Amino acid sequence: MEREAAELFEEFKELTASEFFRRNKQMLGFSGKIRSLTMVFHELITNSLDAAEEAGIQPEITIDLKRVDKDHYILKHTDNGPGIPKKFITKVYCTMFAGSKFRNIQSRGQQGLGCSGCVLLSQMTTGKPAKAVSGYYEGEKLKGVEMTFKMDVKKNQGLILDSKEVEVKNTGVSIELHFKDVSYSLSEQGAFEYIRRTMIANPHAKIRFRDPTGHKFIFERATDVIPPLPKEVLPHPRGVTADDLIFMAKHTDKRRFRSLLTSSLSRMSTKRVNEIEEATGIDLNKRPKDMKWEEAEKIVDLFSQMDFMAPPTSGLIPIGKDQIEKGMREILNPEFISTTTRKPKTYRGGVAFVIEAGISYGGDSGRLVGEQKKAEIMRFANRVPLTFDQGSCAITEALKSIDWKRYGIRDLDNAPITVFVNIVSTNVPYLSTGKQSIAPEAEILHEVRQATMKIARSLQKYIRAKKAAKEEALRSKIFENLVPVIIREAALLAETDVPEYDSVLAKVTRKAKFENIELESEGEDE
Amino acid sequence: MEREAAELFEEFKELTASEFFRRNKQMLGFSGKIRSLTMVFHELITNSLDAAEEAGIQPEITIDLKRVDKDHYILKHTDNGPGIPKKFITKVYCTMFAGSKFRNIQSRGQQGLGCSGCVLLSQMTTGKPAKAVSGYYEGEKLKGVEMTFKMDVKKNQGLILDSKEVEVKNTGVSIELHFKDVSYSLSEQGAFEYIRRTMIANPHAKIRFRDPTGHKFIFERATDVIPPLPKEVLPHPRGVTADDLIFMAKHTDKRRFRSLLTSSLSRMSTKRVNEIEEATGIDLNKRPKDMKWEEAEKIVDLFSQMDFMAPPTSGLIPIGKDQIEKGMREILNPEFISTTTRKPKTYRGGVAFVIEAGISYGGDSGRLVGEQKKAEIMRFANRVPLTFDQGSCAITEALKSIDWKRYGIRDLDNAPITVFVNIVSTNVPYLSTGKQSIAPEAEILHEVRQATMKIARSLQKYIRAKKAAKEEALRSKIFENLVPVIIREAALLAETDVPEYDSVLAKVTRKAKFENIELESEGEDE
Repeated sequence: MEREAAELFEEFKELTASEFFRRNKQMLGFSGKIRSLTMVFHELITNSLDAAEEAGIQPEITIDLKRVDKDHYILKHTDNGPGIPKKFITKVYCTMFAGSKFRNIQSRGQQGLGCSGCVLLSQMTTGKPAKAVSGYYEGEKLKGVEMTFKMDVKKNQGLILDSKEVEVKNTGVSIELHFKDVSYSLSEQGAFEYIRRTMIANPHAKIRFRDPTGHKFIFERATDVIPPLPKEVLPHPRGVTADDLIFMAKHTDKRRFRSLLTSSLSRMSTKRVNEIEEATGIDLNKRPKDMKWEEAEKIVDLFSQMDFMAPPTSGLIPIGKDQIEKGMREILNPEFISTTTRKPKTYRGGVAFVIEAGISYGGDSGRLVGEQKKAEIMRFANRVPLTFDQGSCAITEALKSIDWKRYGIRDLDNAPITVFVNIVSTNVPYLSTGKQSIAPEAEILHEVRQATMKIARSLQKYIRAKKAAKEEALRSKIFENLVPVIIREAALLAETDVPEYDSVLAKVTRKAKFENIELESEGEDE
Repeated sequence: MEREAAELFEEFKELTASEFFRRNKQMLGFSGKIRSLTMVFHELITNSLDAAEEAGIQPEITIDLKRVDKDHYILKHTDNGPGIPKKFITKVYCTMFAGSKFRNIQSRGQQGLGCSGCVLLSQMTTGKPAKAVSGYYEGEKLKGVEMTFKMDVKKNQGLILDSKEVEVKNTGVSIELHFKDVSYSLSEQGAFEYIRRTMIANPHAKIRFRDPTGHKFIFERATDVIPPLPKEVLPHPRGVTADDLIFMAKHTDKRRFRSLLTSSLSRMSTKRVNEIEEATGIDLNKRPKDMKWEEAEKIVDLFSQMDFMAPPTSGLIPIGKDQIEKGMREILNPEFISTTTRKPKTYRGGVAFVIEAGISYGGDSGRLVGEQKKAEIMRFANRVPLTFDQGSCAITEALKSIDWKRYGIRDLDNAPITVFVNIVSTNVPYLSTGKQSIAPEAEILHEVRQATMKIARSLQKYIRAKKAAKEEALRSKIFENLVPVIIREAALLAETDVPEYDSVLAKVTRKAKFENIELESEGEDE
């Protein structure tokens, strides 16, 4: 009954990326009704924020979610970004692994899967085409196009059903998609919470949202400061592998390896290249294609021994401790808050990243479970909320490894606390295609711990001071109650009049002035 | 400072699947040194077991892991499967999203990413080509080919450096790959534990492993029973979506929709098709390409109301409770064991699956952490160990939701217990590309709970009986110790001789016969 190889290979096939993800939509994060809809919000919001910021526009997003029937919705998502030129519309929405974000730049999206994933899910659940209206400048002229299209899954490209010029008032994209088998929820993993968290990390954005009941929410800007545009930075020598060098060498148009090095890597001067040539004995005037693996490896080895300036941090734009505080105050209205933005560090030798953290206590901090407040961990990557796969995420792991008792928090799970952590990087090491958890790189774990312990210390001081003030107040109260009695009884015994004691007592009992307790100002420590 | 759309789209690119995963290797499970090597073992072992079983061969795998330097290894992986015909070798090892497993069949691999992912990792870390020797039958003739190749990432295909005919003694594939930045570990997530767990779920396989210290491990078969070959089954009507019907209709060679239905779905007779035609009023003689979404949706709606026989289960081959017991006994040598295989159920309306579970107590059950035994959860999908992303997996979630105290286990985490759970399906709903966790479908959660609670009840009886026997033994002991004293003292008081009491005492004190306590036999319950 043994079968031979040829028979088993009769069915050998190649799939396109769209076909592959059509069979494996859970890999795009589309699993479960609530999660699927949240992922759609995630992809579209992320894309809109990136596009607006890249174009230097203050982002403003309008989302209208209509309920057609149980688990059946029509979503209209409109932004004020730069728009998409006509010929790229179906590429953006129907071709997987296509995108403009494959550069070494800090952006929310990185993978060329987001928008096309939403169209795929819409098509898989309703068979309906997508409708997009794009307004964009071509030279001085504002153009508008309305396009109706489907995704041809076998070809991984768009199939245009209708396309016409329309008049538009401003730039931006509006996309309308039908979905079934998805569900709008107010839970922690639902679409509404996703918007709320987005607003905490993006206080410069404005979002209008009409929910399926017709209720309109307007999340106003908490700040008018537009975050500076992250710059594309060349990879740092410490961050490249031998494989990267060989790959660059294979696909460059430079004629010599030395010019490839200076033009493709940061911190790489002609002087540096000469040093490399001398130390390795490799002729760097050779053509890039003639570079051998062993030579590339030798160069990368040398990189790890040479002193380089740290990667340029112009490519990294953190939210900033003040902006995080504004965002958290606006949404959580807490009793106490402490935030920090760390200095840039690198992981894997040369990929720069920044960790920011905030901790808030009281007010709307924490999440309400039944009648009880539980601690809430909000994870972000480049300002994007990470809602799922909490268990396997480096941020969760780092927070769990902290001995919270040392910071006066006996039971983190049951404290009215929100912990905010954002990782900023041109290259966030996601663990899965769904972009919901961060790989546990040692340097990232370390930085998350350091940032959180620092703000936890501030919280500890606050909690201690609050407790001390309470005790002080209690002591004063006892004084205030007993002193008059003692004075009266003493006067009675001494057979004199009761003296006037109010002003004296007021001097003795100091009311706890809790509001005035000063916390140490938070600078960067290491 | 606003920028226009055309400028932003200058950098718009399309990537191949290989390029995409080269930039996102963590999505293939390659993150961290230990995990990366375990994933390589996983992909190669999985592929070998599938290939051998598909060809009806008892699997035998030989793995040789040589350490060249710190974090630098050469892996040679040899199987006795049917081999790969020459023209498919680079397709299997160098083209992503290509494979022979995209059918509706229960197999370990499903995604056409595994082997090519290993070659990609090897190339990315060492720049070395891969070397494969394949022995395969072409008609009656045993052919052998040795090929050295690299992956052309920009083209997502192989680049053959050398290819020659060689003499081989039998069928099978041997692949040799170099890796750097990986690490062999004996930890729970390491490569050795991966082999051990594979042997528990595949007691019919044999694996020889030479570890980097040169030590040879031979994992012998615990059974000679070859698992029956799973059959390819047509999708069940309850398991298809409107999108599936439209997709089938678009890519079929059938001339009429009615013949497409009967030939593409299981449980679909001409009589059934006539019923559908009558109930929906749709002319099923129309050409498949003319089928509209609304019509497909109407048909799928009707499917959900019609009574169908359950999906054919010939496509599902569980390990079986006896075989699981053999596997667990061989590897864990436990004091007590209970196993169960549930009846097939469906999730998402029509995807059939089976849950199997085993629980073992004592012996080598549990994992040793320091000096203490901790509970160990072994998750499997189609006999493949799932080693990572435990937190987000439906199996973990279901096990955690069980009230273990009800089964006499006060503290599951600290019990010397191994819980084994295997999900068998033609279509395992993985949460991520790394295939390490199962989506929390309600029906799957339910079945895992039911299976585990059933075997937990057996364990409870065992633990109770063991406790009762201990107490009984204690009582007997007291009797045995005290009765002679009483008799002797009574004789002294009565001034008579001490009578012979041994035989009487033996009758009174029943020794606890722990070994003979019978546990109820385990049938299927619901």
